[in-house]
Amino acid sequence: MIDRRGFLGGTALSAVAASLVGRSEAATLPEAASREGAATEPPLSPPSGRPYNPVVTLNGWTLPWRMRQGWKEFHLVAEPVVREVAPGMKANLWGYNGQSPGPTIECVEGDRVRIFVTNRLPEHTTVHWHGQPLPNGMDGVGGLTQPQIPPGKTFVYEFQVRRSGTFMYHPHADEMVQMAMGMMGFFVVHPRDPAVARVDRDFVFLIGAYDIAPGARVPKVATMTDFNLWTWNSRVFPGIAPLPVRRGDRVRIRMGNLSMTNHPIHLHGYEFVVTGTDGGWVPPSARWPEVTVDVPVGAMRTIEFVAEEPGDWAFHCHKSHHTMNAMGHDVPNLIGVDHRGVARSIARLVPDYMVMGERGMADMGAMEMPLPDNTLPMMTGAGPFGALEMGGMFTVVKVRDGLARDDYRDPGWYRHPKGTVAYEWTGPLPGRS
Amino acid sequence: MIDRRGFLGGTALSAVAASLVGRSEAATLPEAASREGAATEPPLSPPSGRPYNPVVTLNGWTLPWRMRQGWKEFHLVAEPVVREVAPGMKANLWGYNGQSPGPTIECVEGDRVRIFVTNRLPEHTTVHWHGQPLPNGMDGVGGLTQPQIPPGKTFVYEFQVRRSGTFMYHPHADEMVQMAMGMMGFFVVHPRDPAVARVDRDFVFLIGAYDIAPGARVPKVATMTDFNLWTWNSRVFPGIAPLPVRRGDRVRIRMGNLSMTNHPIHLHGYEFVVTGTDGGWVPPSARWPEVTVDVPVGAMRTIEFVAEEPGDWAFHCHKSHHTMNAMGHDVPNLIGVDHRGVARSIARLVPDYMVMGERGMADMGAMEMPLPDNTLPMMTGAGPFGALEMGGMFTVVKVRDGLARDDYRDPGWYRHPKGTVAYEWTGPLPGRS
Amino acid sequence: MIDRRGFLGGTALSAVAASLVGRSEAATLPEAASREGAATEPPLSPPSGRPYNPVVTLNGWTLPWRMRQGWKEFHLVAEPVVREVAPGMKANLWGYNGQSPGPTIECVEGDRVRIFVTNRLPEHTTVHWHGQPLPNGMDGVGGLTQPQIPPGKTFVYEFQVRRSGTFMYHPHADEMVQMAMGMMGFFVVHPRDPAVARVDRDFVFLIGAYDIAPGARVPKVATMTDFNLWTWNSRVFPGIAPLPVRRGDRVRIRMGNLSMTNHPIHLHGYEFVVTGTDGGWVPPSARWPEVTVDVPVGAMRTIEFVAEEPGDWAFHCHKSHHTMNAMGHDVPNLIGVDHRGVARSIARLVPDYMVMGERGMADMGAMEMPLPDNTLPMMTGAGPFGALEMGGMFTVVKVRDGLARDDYRDPGWYRHPKGTVAYEWTGPLPGRS
Repeated sequence: MIDRRGFLGGTALSAVAASLVGRSEAATLPEAASREGAATEPPLSPPSGRPYNPVVTLNGWTLPWRMRQGWKEFHLVAEPVVREVAPGMKANLWGYNGQSPGPTIECVEGDRVRIFVTNRLPEHTTVHWHGQPLPNGMDGVGGLTQPQIPPGKTFVYEFQVRRSGTFMYHPHADEMVQMAMGMMGFFVVHPRDPAVARVDRDFVFLIGAYDIAPGARVPKVATMTDFNLWTWNSRVFPGIAPLPVRRGDRVRIRMGNLSMTNHPIHLHGYEFVVTGTDGGWVPPSARWPEVTVDVPVGAMRTIEFVAEEPGDWAFHCHKSHHTMNAMGHDVPNLIGVDHRGVARSIARLVPDYMVMGERGMADMGAMEMPLPDNTLPMMTGAGPFGALEMGGMFTVVKVRDGLARDDYRDPGWYRHPKGTVAYEWTGPLPGRS
Repeated sequence: MIDRRGFLGGTALSAVAASLVGRSEAATLPEAASREGAATEPPLSPPSGRPYNPVVTLNGWTLPWRMRQGWKEFHLVAEPVVREVAPGMKANLWGYNGQSPGPTIECVEGDRVRIFVTNRLPEHTTVHWHGQPLPNGMDGVGGLTQPQIPPGKTFVYEFQVRRSGTFMYHPHADEMVQMAMGMMGFFVVHPRDPAVARVDRDFVFLIGAYDIAPGARVPKVATMTDFNLWTWNSRVFPGIAPLPVRRGDRVRIRMGNLSMTNHPIHLHGYEFVVTGTDGGWVPPSARWPEVTVDVPVGAMRTIEFVAEEPGDWAFHCHKSHHTMNAMGHDVPNLIGVDHRGVARSIARLVPDYMVMGERGMADMGAMEMPLPDNTLPMMTGAGPFGALEMGGMFTVVKVRDGLARDDYRDPGWYRHPKGTVAYEWTGPLPGRS
Repeated sequence: MIDRRGFLGGTALSAVAASLVGRSEAATLPEAASREGAATEPPLSPPSGRPYNPVVTLNGWTLPWRMRQGWKEFHLVAEPVVREVAPGMKANLWGYNGQSPGPTIECVEGDRVRIFVTNRLPEHTTVHWHGQPLPNGMDGVGGLTQPQIPPGKTFVYEFQVRRSGTFMYHPHADEMVQMAMGMMGFFVVHPRDPAVARVDRDFVFLIGAYDIAPGARVPKVATMTDFNLWTWNSRVFPGIAPLPVRRGDRVRIRMGNLSMTNHPIHLHGYEFVVTGTDGGWVPPSARWPEVTVDVPVGAMRTIEFVAEEPGDWAFHCHKSHHTMNAMGHDVPNLIGVDHRGVARSIARLVPDYMVMGERGMADMGAMEMPLPDNTLPMMTGAGPFGALEMGGMFTVVKVRDGLARDDYRDPGWYRHPKGTVAYEWTGPLPGRS
């Protein structure tokens, strides 16, 4: 790993001057790496440039770069992609470099980055570097700060990253449609000194929502509120990777929201603090302890905690419909309370009462219901104790003793020590007061 | 009241060891107290265990416990209940111990609690102790950290409460359905030292939403956004109890949200600060002054203020539809502005224009409209100066001189001193500039 | 400008006593100024009373007052208005003094204000002074703290403003309907010392949403979530005024939300901090850096930043549907990805696939589509580099060198220095890895 301080020299070139140098000398485009699968790739240790502690993108990867004359050069390709939302369902989305979301971009405070963006979509696009302070002409707002990038063309963005933190990228062209189709990616700027704000595990993901009719593969792009797939990195449970964590690790999780509503992300078993937003690091005096962080649309939240308590800790959006997969929201009443002697009066009021689900819906988590092809069950998944009855934005933080520092494989289910699980009462039942 | 410090002794038993002791010796289930009415019960002064300053649950109550060999034992019964949402309407919900929400659980930091949960529902359930740091196997996630609790069975949860604060409990089994049916309850952990963070009044309630068709009694459980009953503790105005406060009191109000959207809770006449979340107490340096606290889903907020200004202060969700009861949201335009000479052009554009409500909807707050049985008017209620035109999440903080410290009865309407109410102008009218 | 300290004298009269004096001696109503256009009026330097640094209301104005015996007297007239939402569309709303929102009220901490409210609506109304600490009888809740103001009548509100900050006013009578019709206004209380919290530019606006069918002029007042016009001060892009800022200025923007959902307001190119809410000023220790501020319903946020980077910086709600104008949300899938060889399988699953927009929707930003009269295109607007494809809550903060301190005219588009805009790559294309 090269110390680039000497290379950049003592005098900071202005972005403009550097840009001109770049134009004349960067004779070729860097390769555009691409991925087809949805596996979580291990963290990419920086092969060149300043050192940093890399992040792990849930069900995603980090975009490689090349160093050229003091610039970190990346190549993003905007294009249609096929994304496996979870085993059993694929969606036709738009994304970058073979996936939706696109690959995570990582660099270091002070880096000069040159990002080539090739448009292989059927319509024009741009890329906006959400949260980055940069020269106005690199802000990526089609029509306002640059011409649109027509299909088939490649545009070049150049700027020096001014502050460390948590960012996103997404189009600012036909914005509603292109984000509804899945165009988004994470962008992490690491501190110049890797010892600053250091953690042991650093996970990132983006929240998005899709409206894909059962059996279909393409999202409806005009849907405003009635989405049916609530995703992290365009994945739903049981397709979202778990977060393996070594007991005692300091853990950071960074989230950005590009859906149409707030998502209150809840972690079981731990209090955490929000240490950063897309606007910067939150000063310690301003931090709130929380167990649920409400991530607004078009905003990012970074949370941190120390993983002292081992186990399988649910980690999910707390809007209960967002831990379900596709379902109808306009069905008749499902639940009868007939054993309390009120069934007759209900039936009188609601003639079509007492259809399926008269005892709740939990049966549906375990039953084999016929579904259209390419459609996920509303609730599914199995844990160590039976059906989990979940979908959507749900996964598990798995805190284990003895996990290797760089091991991000799924460690399986937690083995509870004898006598530490809620247990059945087998004694006599009392009366009630 | 017993100082339990001596009783617990100097050495903290591990949760596991204590659990084993408990299993062998707790020979009987504690009684499961139950309530039928929706009156606000007075605060329950702790009859045993460490002393604390009890909370008041709006239209609710605190669950009694028994002390047994150093454990505080509670008994929750999950079961169908009939809840009076407001006078004139009852709903068939699911809840705990006769009510939805279930009773508030109160204990003290350091307490070892054993909670027996009996399932009298027609489907399996679990209880998740939202926000509590505890051993993984007591976290109550069906399938993940324990087997589901089948109908007819009783499960036992045991943990030592590690920090004071504001918590909830709710199922983590068929979660969308069971919360849509009203299964939730408050859980307060008091500081070990009753002088810490002491206030004079401490109110708690949970926010929930239901979709019950006019004339029906059972909520539609698949509704995602289009709810028609926005409730505090499964009550709507004018069924929500007022908050009587003595002038000069330091007041705390704790809220948790288990609906599907943020609720911005607004208090008239006072600034307050958020002093806590379900993640802990907010340090003073991090507190914001507010008049509206936006409570995210799956999160709790604790606010505090000093009640210096007497009067009847409205306290409500600021989403205007959430201070309405059941209504249609897809009706044609209601308001004509014909006295401004534009009625003809509107009628040309909207042929069905100028139906009911051409002068607004305020008439509906006072009029006698025929309604289906068991249905509340959209707007209702009467105050000291006439129709209030409210519903849903609306009540009044009543600040009075000379209220007894432990008096939580409704003190009636405020008597405004002469000349302190907005008054009619009876002088001449001017022209306009 | 007069120092009013001497005038008010050393002894503060009680509100009650002052009110009685006022009643007997204020023999005439002050004039009710009115505006018809939607231009942004320049800041109103206070002609009387304590000095302060006035705000600029986007597409609005500040209400003049008269001083009378130590009281600042304002006159609001609640009435039907015609508001140009953007060039090409007018709406029939309810508002104050000729406009929706009503004029901004500005005064100074410690001022005694008397506000005459004349009701020219077809139904009763009141005015609630959101966020103001005041005597209960001046709080403006119809039925609870005062009688409703009948049509044709004028009521008088009197109170001393106790703290500086950011407030709103709106009815608390038939509240859902009257706010859905546009009744709201800004209320700024300036610090007693104009040097405190001084900024160079201070903009204010209110967020509201309307549901006006294409071709119609009157909002549907019962809509709860499916609005189609997302407005700032009842204006949409391209009708929202830009925010001209001199490079180096300290800029404050104050927003209040009276719609039915959170609005995450995003500023490009800058980090900012929230310095205030409707509850007061946020202490510096509690401030978070952000690029998107999530403004809850019934709440206000004040943000501040220093405008160091010149350019045209997009400023908008980040919910992508909120930067669109009226559109249908229930249309079939629009986008084919046929060039990737999957069209056939999609068509098999979705028979009505491949209708309009098979390449996205960006064409609609530039095309000439026939629209009903009085209807705005879904996406529109042109910038220096072509079609902007925006609507709704979108405008531009224009940071310029050499702008005069009091110049609030639109400075036109930013002229990017040569080489500072993302540029097209004209070299050879590589393969992909």
